[in-house]
Amino acid sequence: MPADAPNRHAFTDALKRGLYEAIFRRRDIREFIPDPIPDEVLARVLIAAHHAASVGFTQPWDFIVVRSVERRRRVKEIFEAERAKNAAQFSGERREKYLQLKLEGILEAPLNLIVTCKPDRFGPAVLGKTSIRDVEIYSACLAVENLWLTARAEGLGMGWVSILRNDALAEIFGIPDDVIPIAYLCVGYVREFPDRPILASADWAKRLPPRSLIHFDSWSGQGAAADRDPNAESLLKKIDDHSIWLSIFPEDSADEPPSRD
Amino acid sequence: MPADAPNRHAFTDALKRGLYEAIFRRRDIREFIPDPIPDEVLARVLIAAHHAASVGFTQPWDFIVVRSVERRRRVKEIFEAERAKNAAQFSGERREKYLQLKLEGILEAPLNLIVTCKPDRFGPAVLGKTSIRDVEIYSACLAVENLWLTARAEGLGMGWVSILRNDALAEIFGIPDDVIPIAYLCVGYVREFPDRPILASADWAKRLPPRSLIHFDSWSGQGAAADRDPNAESLLKKIDDHSIWLSIFPEDSADEPPSRD
Repeated sequence: MPADAPNRHAFTDALKRGLYEAIFRRRDIREFIPDPIPDEVLARVLIAAHHAASVGFTQPWDFIVVRSVERRRRVKEIFEAERAKNAAQFSGERREKYLQLKLEGILEAPLNLIVTCKPDRFGPAVLGKTSIRDVEIYSACLAVENLWLTARAEGLGMGWVSILRNDALAEIFGIPDDVIPIAYLCVGYVREFPDRPILASADWAKRLPPRSLIHFDSWSGQGAAADRDPNAESLLKKIDDHSIWLSIFPEDSADEPPSRD
Repeated sequence: MPADAPNRHAFTDALKRGLYEAIFRRRDIREFIPDPIPDEVLARVLIAAHHAASVGFTQPWDFIVVRSVERRRRVKEIFEAERAKNAAQFSGERREKYLQLKLEGILEAPLNLIVTCKPDRFGPAVLGKTSIRDVEIYSACLAVENLWLTARAEGLGMGWVSILRNDALAEIFGIPDDVIPIAYLCVGYVREFPDRPILASADWAKRLPPRSLIHFDSWSGQGAAADRDPNAESLLKKIDDHSIWLSIFPEDSADEPPSRD
């Protein structure tokens, strides 16, 4: 492309593909094989996590690498109690379905990983923090997505166990009061990465049509209001047009959506 | 690799590279050129955001595409007031430096984008939500990282304006009470992507050594405690060993760290 083209810093289609593949093939995994994760691979995904964006470059994350079976057993107990609470929120067929789902791999996975957030690492004054109090927590979550995507590219499955109790995690892992546990993750190799999200295959929930989530200039700028806005209409057409992926995934068909649920 | 190798689902090194390049070259951008973003490109990054992980597959995010100059002027006013508050948290030389930094491109960027979180999209019962209340907010942040990485791959800069007020954003954009603004983003093409984070070049903060953020089996499993654990030592060695990147970035030198700040 010309040296003065606005998109002159864009990656080649081949490089873009690596990123989009990771995004579309990432799954929330709950079944693992016991093979150990080479240190070289674990090092790469941890460094990638550390290169997420952070408010005021505070890098508020820490990573606890958990191999101890004894501590993981205690986490599993907390999980079981929370799962019972979670199941009680549903009734009838929905509860049955909930109870059939495997929601974690705490003991099977060769590794658990905790991502935490220490908001005051460099003191209370933070460039980029005023009225919105949770900005460092948001940063720690960005690190989790980097972990998840690079784990996928390395062939590693990852699953987020979100039904735990932070006070229990703090006790089990000696996490100080000024540090917030953000994500409890199970990590390991897998027999397979499912084509679709597990909760989609299990008919628990459906992928929402992306156009239903896009608003123009205000929350109410949607549906009929967007139809009257030619800029909106033109973007929404592209959202539904599978040929926007052909340069990156040339084997896809422009007529039929690729298997990208 | 053999069909039964544990890492048989790993990407090729060429595909891994696309993802790692996006992670290492992503920057928080505050200077934009006015060229418009093609709808096809914007459609791809929005679809990528929508493919982030979400608790219970709730997909709690919405995206407001903001082109209106009038609304952006109002956001800029809020920003200015918050910036004054933020500057007041620092003193002396640090405040001077703060005031010299450009922290947003609200009006210069061709596009602003708001990512929101609607926790109760499918009702109060959420698979994966019990004692930890903010799980849907965490999911919305994962979508922001997908946006940021794919924007980079598409040659687009993105900057997160985190010093705003959510009540003001709700008013300007008509965001309902049950929806939380998470990220206010400026998006556009750029003259250049800096080699290093802007706040590192400006000597505001330094990248922390990744080994300082890694703990083993408990928060206190660091430093001298980790030195006594052979598993910990072996991982930390890999963290510091630049040759772990050579298969993916063959042009790097194993002796000298690549420019990956």
